[in-house]
Amino acid sequence: MKQKRYFLDEKDLPEQWYNIVPDMVVKPQPMLDPVTRKPVTVEDLSRIFSLEASRQELNATDRWIPIPDKVREMYTYYRSTPLVRAYGLEKALDTPAHIYFKNESVSPVGSHKLNSAIPQAYYCKMEGDTNVTTETGAGQWGTALAYAASVFGIDSAVYQVKLSYEQKPYRRSMMQVFGSQVTASPSMSTRAGKDILTVNPHHQGSLGTAISEAVELARMTPGCKYTLGSVMSHVTLHQTIIGLEAEKQIEMAGEYPDVVIGCFGGGSNFGGISFPFLRHVLDGTRKGTRFVAAEPESCPKMTKGEFGYDFGDEAGYTPLIPMFSLGHKFRPAHIHAGGLRYHGAGAIVSQLLKDGFVEAADISQMDSFAAGTLFARTEGIVPAPESCHAIAAAIREAAACREEGVQRTILFNLTGHGLMDMAAYDQYLAGNLV
Amino acid sequence: MKQKRYFLDEKDLPEQWYNIVPDMVVKPQPMLDPVTRKPVTVEDLSRIFSLEASRQELNATDRWIPIPDKVREMYTYYRSTPLVRAYGLEKALDTPAHIYFKNESVSPVGSHKLNSAIPQAYYCKMEGDTNVTTETGAGQWGTALAYAASVFGIDSAVYQVKLSYEQKPYRRSMMQVFGSQVTASPSMSTRAGKDILTVNPHHQGSLGTAISEAVELARMTPGCKYTLGSVMSHVTLHQTIIGLEAEKQIEMAGEYPDVVIGCFGGGSNFGGISFPFLRHVLDGTRKGTRFVAAEPESCPKMTKGEFGYDFGDEAGYTPLIPMFSLGHKFRPAHIHAGGLRYHGAGAIVSQLLKDGFVEAADISQMDSFAAGTLFARTEGIVPAPESCHAIAAAIREAAACREEGVQRTILFNLTGHGLMDMAAYDQYLAGNLV
Repeated sequence: MKQKRYFLDEKDLPEQWYNIVPDMVVKPQPMLDPVTRKPVTVEDLSRIFSLEASRQELNATDRWIPIPDKVREMYTYYRSTPLVRAYGLEKALDTPAHIYFKNESVSPVGSHKLNSAIPQAYYCKMEGDTNVTTETGAGQWGTALAYAASVFGIDSAVYQVKLSYEQKPYRRSMMQVFGSQVTASPSMSTRAGKDILTVNPHHQGSLGTAISEAVELARMTPGCKYTLGSVMSHVTLHQTIIGLEAEKQIEMAGEYPDVVIGCFGGGSNFGGISFPFLRHVLDGTRKGTRFVAAEPESCPKMTKGEFGYDFGDEAGYTPLIPMFSLGHKFRPAHIHAGGLRYHGAGAIVSQLLKDGFVEAADISQMDSFAAGTLFARTEGIVPAPESCHAIAAAIREAAACREEGVQRTILFNLTGHGLMDMAAYDQYLAGNLV
Repeated sequence: MKQKRYFLDEKDLPEQWYNIVPDMVVKPQPMLDPVTRKPVTVEDLSRIFSLEASRQELNATDRWIPIPDKVREMYTYYRSTPLVRAYGLEKALDTPAHIYFKNESVSPVGSHKLNSAIPQAYYCKMEGDTNVTTETGAGQWGTALAYAASVFGIDSAVYQVKLSYEQKPYRRSMMQVFGSQVTASPSMSTRAGKDILTVNPHHQGSLGTAISEAVELARMTPGCKYTLGSVMSHVTLHQTIIGLEAEKQIEMAGEYPDVVIGCFGGGSNFGGISFPFLRHVLDGTRKGTRFVAAEPESCPKMTKGEFGYDFGDEAGYTPLIPMFSLGHKFRPAHIHAGGLRYHGAGAIVSQLLKDGFVEAADISQMDSFAAGTLFARTEGIVPAPESCHAIAAAIREAAACREEGVQRTILFNLTGHGLMDMAAYDQYLAGNLV
């Protein structure tokens, strides 16, 4: 019987995250303080983030960053995640390609987001903080932070985009089950929220409003730190656990990927699965591996954005980040893949795109759900709308293999399940999706 | 670092299911035809079930039943499921007990139900059927059958209890994503449904009405067979994969359970995790292992039911089953654990209860959700309302260990996740649950 899934023994779990910056040919440009236009410092950053996260963001000159024991212990609650050979999907596509996916949907919170929520909450706890806060759109990151905070015995407050709070009440419920205090944003609980609601009492919220509220809460509350689920380099660092495991697992299968694919919101899951493989291209031991970021057609920052300094949030509270961006005021269409509705790409990935090490593919919402439905029927997992983009890109690659009559090995990251997104599938099946 | 999760290599997956009947001291009495009062035959049963399922139900004299290769292959899509040491829960309970759970929630459809849906759909396919049908209450079984049918390329029609169809629309969506035709029961699509609706146009449905409709569809449709998700002996047979894996996995942990716990609806998951361990009691190689069925206080067939012949459905279409029952007209309260709202216990478990080999614990709905919420916060999995009953029983056992100052090893079956049941958790957290 052909082997379907590959796991690592717990003793073989990676002990370090991989920091790609030392290996980059051209380093990413520094983040700038928007007022002084000087590079932000660890001191600046640690006013809102934990000190350790700030250090990892700005000072990480080591290639390998040790994973704290306590974080590794919590990783064993769900890691290694399985690497899966998608025999069912391959058969349905009638392709000579070998398709593998890393199944991050098996995490307690249903997505890869927990890989960074655990260390971020842990650092806050270790540094004496009692509270953490963040924003969430689709809800995957908020759920991850809620659970991670609960694990380390600290309180969490999540600002959830109001539209999502109302459309996906069960995401809110999950955060509450994990003990988090969840507020629809914009809210009357912050100055930023009040200002927005004064101008527009019916504002439906955005990641921009929610970030502004969470950052304000962290700034104004002693013992409370802000955390972020993507975009920043330290988040991507934590997510390299995905690629590091996948590298060992695909070796167990006797293979090596020709193409590595991740969906693309802020870049952390894409970087997480790609960078450990990309390091072999950077050090010259592997040639020709392709890295494909699958972004929504309606939010095409990688293919149609411009490279330059831009804010990370709508209100302009964050430092200026050197990145491909559609502009921080860009308002993406209301696609169901809320996690991909972000205007910019993290600094590292942006530099790598500029230098030709990674590429991007635009996926329409219809293609993404068609891919997700086929995947559900053949592999038995209902994928998150975000993950559907990676699946669609993998299907495209597999179709090319069939047309060319070439066997290639495709690896993609299944970031999460879509069990909180069934309303979106309903619309797709009913033909009501555009 | 202490090991948290145990997996089997795919090559070590069980190749046979365990049939407990040959090892039973007193065999279960036969099912009877309600009209002739004679034992039902394979011929009778195979008019609605697949021939192979009918044979397994009535003629299984072998202790070990080979699992077909194709079924084993589909099992590898999610099996072995992890055996998990619940360190987080143990710590929260401050108990000397070692608590393990078998995590069946990682299956593609979110529960253990798939273990039997795969072989049942496979047998139908092999016997030339083109369609399968069934009923579903909570939705776990219907989802499992929808996916299994899709895998083997046959069509499926699921009658979902109308109340559940409307309260849990996302369960319906999942079945539709897997390609199933889902109908709220009672419906106008069958004679049985029409009769019910004529008398009561606002009937909210029950497992009884849905079984009647599905059985009628199977009887009236060439190439269509009926399938069932619990109660029957062949279903429990398929579920022994759970206990057979758990036995190997807990040995990897260097332990053996003192108490084995499963929630109890019709008995298939409870039998599935228990029987492989119970066989060592029956053959005299192990003494003192306890087997606890966790049933809802509001549907106490094991503790307060009577043993005798009763129908499996409300309308009286099924054979008479020798079982502990609250009466086939019993109407359990509308608790959220829809999978446990069944009036009777399967024939084998009923006989074992009668003979003192298994015991039962009654769990209130409040206790079940308190247990489920604690479990979510400590182990990171939001459990199904059904599974919450097993967790509550495990917590009770662990508390006894603490009080007695005794270390015992507790094993329970986590049948499924509760991600489709967040509305129930909402009610619990809001204090609106009775």
